[in-house]
Amino acid sequence: MKNNLVKNALGRMVPTEVNGKPATPFQGVGKFRPSGHKAAPPISSCADYPEDGNKVVKDLKTALKKAGISDGMTISTHHHFRNGDLVANQIFDAAAELGVKDLMWFPSASFPCHEPVIEHLENGVVHHIEGSMNGPLGDYCSQGKMRGLGVLRSHGGRYQAIQDGEVHIDIAVIAAPTADQFGNANGLSGPSACGLLGFALADSQYADKVIVVTDNLVDFPCVPWQIQGNYVDHVVVMDKIGEPEKIISGTTQITKSPDRLLIAEMTAQFVRDAGILRDGFSFQAGAGGTSLAFAIYLKEMMKQMGIKARFVRGGSTQYLVQMLEQGLTDYILDGQTFDLEGVRSMRENPRHVNTSPFTSYNFHGKGNFASMVDVVVLGATEVDVNFNANVVTHSDGRLLHGIGGWQNCLFSKCTILPIPSFRDRIPVIVDEVTTLCGPGELIDVIVTERGIAINPQRKDLIQATRSSSLPIRAIEEIQHEIEEIVGGKPEKPRFGEKVVAVIKWVDGTIIDSVFQTSV
Amino acid sequence: MKNNLVKNALGRMVPTEVNGKPATPFQGVGKFRPSGHKAAPPISSCADYPEDGNKVVKDLKTALKKAGISDGMTISTHHHFRNGDLVANQIFDAAAELGVKDLMWFPSASFPCHEPVIEHLENGVVHHIEGSMNGPLGDYCSQGKMRGLGVLRSHGGRYQAIQDGEVHIDIAVIAAPTADQFGNANGLSGPSACGLLGFALADSQYADKVIVVTDNLVDFPCVPWQIQGNYVDHVVVMDKIGEPEKIISGTTQITKSPDRLLIAEMTAQFVRDAGILRDGFSFQAGAGGTSLAFAIYLKEMMKQMGIKARFVRGGSTQYLVQMLEQGLTDYILDGQTFDLEGVRSMRENPRHVNTSPFTSYNFHGKGNFASMVDVVVLGATEVDVNFNANVVTHSDGRLLHGIGGWQNCLFSKCTILPIPSFRDRIPVIVDEVTTLCGPGELIDVIVTERGIAINPQRKDLIQATRSSSLPIRAIEEIQHEIEEIVGGKPEKPRFGEKVVAVIKWVDGTIIDSVFQTSV
Repeated sequence: MKNNLVKNALGRMVPTEVNGKPATPFQGVGKFRPSGHKAAPPISSCADYPEDGNKVVKDLKTALKKAGISDGMTISTHHHFRNGDLVANQIFDAAAELGVKDLMWFPSASFPCHEPVIEHLENGVVHHIEGSMNGPLGDYCSQGKMRGLGVLRSHGGRYQAIQDGEVHIDIAVIAAPTADQFGNANGLSGPSACGLLGFALADSQYADKVIVVTDNLVDFPCVPWQIQGNYVDHVVVMDKIGEPEKIISGTTQITKSPDRLLIAEMTAQFVRDAGILRDGFSFQAGAGGTSLAFAIYLKEMMKQMGIKARFVRGGSTQYLVQMLEQGLTDYILDGQTFDLEGVRSMRENPRHVNTSPFTSYNFHGKGNFASMVDVVVLGATEVDVNFNANVVTHSDGRLLHGIGGWQNCLFSKCTILPIPSFRDRIPVIVDEVTTLCGPGELIDVIVTERGIAINPQRKDLIQATRSSSLPIRAIEEIQHEIEEIVGGKPEKPRFGEKVVAVIKWVDGTIIDSVFQTSV
Repeated sequence: MKNNLVKNALGRMVPTEVNGKPATPFQGVGKFRPSGHKAAPPISSCADYPEDGNKVVKDLKTALKKAGISDGMTISTHHHFRNGDLVANQIFDAAAELGVKDLMWFPSASFPCHEPVIEHLENGVVHHIEGSMNGPLGDYCSQGKMRGLGVLRSHGGRYQAIQDGEVHIDIAVIAAPTADQFGNANGLSGPSACGLLGFALADSQYADKVIVVTDNLVDFPCVPWQIQGNYVDHVVVMDKIGEPEKIISGTTQITKSPDRLLIAEMTAQFVRDAGILRDGFSFQAGAGGTSLAFAIYLKEMMKQMGIKARFVRGGSTQYLVQMLEQGLTDYILDGQTFDLEGVRSMRENPRHVNTSPFTSYNFHGKGNFASMVDVVVLGATEVDVNFNANVVTHSDGRLLHGIGGWQNCLFSKCTILPIPSFRDRIPVIVDEVTTLCGPGELIDVIVTERGIAINPQRKDLIQATRSSSLPIRAIEEIQHEIEEIVGGKPEKPRFGEKVVAVIKWVDGTIIDSVFQTSV
């Protein structure tokens, strides 16, 4: 595949066509303005659906046949089951049995459990994947083996792409921990409970045909209906749709690394010293070990200061649930539950609120929640001296990580990346990131165990922390110190000329390309 | 205005064009199949909305100007405040001040409190109204004074019309008892609490511009967001948006009329004798005096039989709330709350579920809830010997009543109309209804104080009640008895030739016309 590459507003080389459709290069944050109208799904009629509301069909293959599966279609799935999903692989096995070819798989993310899809990429059932690829599928894509380009979209970007009609879903398959025969569904109960189903919301609203797959069928009405049966065509009942121990970790682990604990504590101190930690504030932190530790340090500071948050954005864990139950926040606005306590809390507590990429992240809406969050704490694989960051490729160039809601969260009022200064003796602060996922102008603070760097554009934060005892330094100074320790700058990965994947920005433009690793 | 009339599948004369758009005559229940795609609103960008989420503007006039109000636009409102709405009249006052002409008002229903809109119909600010007109506006329309045709749509039909793009809303104004600055809104709290905002759901989703008006602004997030701020352009704060005593009646009155109590009791007995009253059944009854009495008789029977309902459809009142709280039903699936107990219950009890015309009634969805209800009890102004029924005009031909969810409810498994056999000495059972709102094939049982008539098409119900002690009779027999009492058949109203309004069926086709009364 030859790519016609152009330089975008960040100087990154990106293709002008992606999987047969014209693509727009990134134009700068907030610069691209969409035109036109939202996608318009076909109009249905109740006259074509059973009056008693019973949409259950025999099995997944029957549902796919009834939904009219055929060559070249786009099939979507969600990733609320993370690495415990048992449904997606079965879709493509069924498609193979039906003799269907060249499908586009459009997951909200894929995981190591989906490695069997490689077989279907090889045998022609699946043409290519658009969606985050964690692990083996990302590696496969990196090697240039996929027929089409991988397309990585943020959670909000995926909603935007569906809403705007950039991606037309022919058949959405929504694995649901609880559902009724009409197709109303939620993630709150059942053996495969995952909390919510927000990643599948756009799929239900915009796909031509929608199939709900459950292992916990209840009598109508399934309440709450996180997915509305009025969008659903067929319901399939299976013995088991997910492996609970891989859906939910049970307990999420706080880091024990002294360096990372230090980084977490410094991050919390920075939030306090910058004046962000005040009554009625809001924050978001992930479920990684450092982020969890940050939240715990923050919680202690909040108690000492006698303040509470107005809301905390999840991914929720037991630690956020404790904050809610101890009255340290009015609400958790949650996009995905990471442990059983998160699921329980969302099921029981009306202040633990189910959100979706539409409410939280869609950039082509009339505002979204992300820009209202006071401070967000995120990870990164690399950061450059201009505060641009990478979250999808390793420094060896391999595409091994999904992009999640990371880009969307950058719109918070203060974005902090707490990162170790090096990993496996490879510096994390570099001259230029391997893949540019987030523009430096949106990344405000880097916290490493060797010091904190504030983006020079954020004069307000520099001013606010002037009298802080924290080790605030220039990013170049921290970079040099790391390079001295590890013996110089990291080796640049060698790439082929072939683009194997693109990274979309939140507005659907292309912010960077991923190149083939092994030539 | 000259109307080109054709005969539809029920033999009613209907125009082929309505307010400048081609119209499809009713073709039979379930016969019309829609083609094409849903309406596609313009794509927005967060870049055009405030990052801090604050969309509050000075006043309603400012919001309308910012929304680009101009001649000929369609402005929509909801009727959850019923006769206590203080917002709609202000919209047209503001439009008048702005010099705007020829607006189409598209309320989900209008009430006597909206009589001041007649002035704006006279002065040219409002061109015509599409929506149910209870009282003075209906009378005004009946007299042929409105420039355009009135168009009455059921709750589901209104959702369908918006979804299908038959009605394009330029600006939706959503009065909200509680809202935040981002536009998230609900009806659960605040001085004008009305329970829910489901009638405004389609407006929020499909209108080009959406204005939320509240008298109870809360900090973000307003939870739950029955209306999602991500659809909202502007927020207006006012001192008072509704008159609580007219929004909510406080206590809803059970009929004290011995005849109506008898009808209610017979209706409940019929439901029992027909075998519908069994564990896990479902029912819907309105908030009128007879319907309330029916629900109370039914409740006593349920207790005696030791059974519970799976769900009850509201309009909710204290009586349904008691059933929920006493464990006589698993859920209330509610479309509007009629008293303060309904509001409280919906606010507090997750089993008192907020529904919308999309979930409950939209006929152009993938099924809806209405056809899953075991039995529904509805009113009517007239019924004919073929079980066709009228719910919008009086026997004098005046258009005085809204259509509500009445047509949508006819799809239940058993539709019963408990009606007095005459009103003001005018028989209610007639040879031909003045206005045909519901086809007889969907109306199963008529209960009067003089006997019960079962639709001959429902052989199953006739069979099931064969050994019942209830006075089951042919409808003609009851009709003759009434005519003997009141001294003959009712006088037919005299109409002009001019069509002043049309009644839409749930699929958007025209089921009947309303003709001018005074010529």
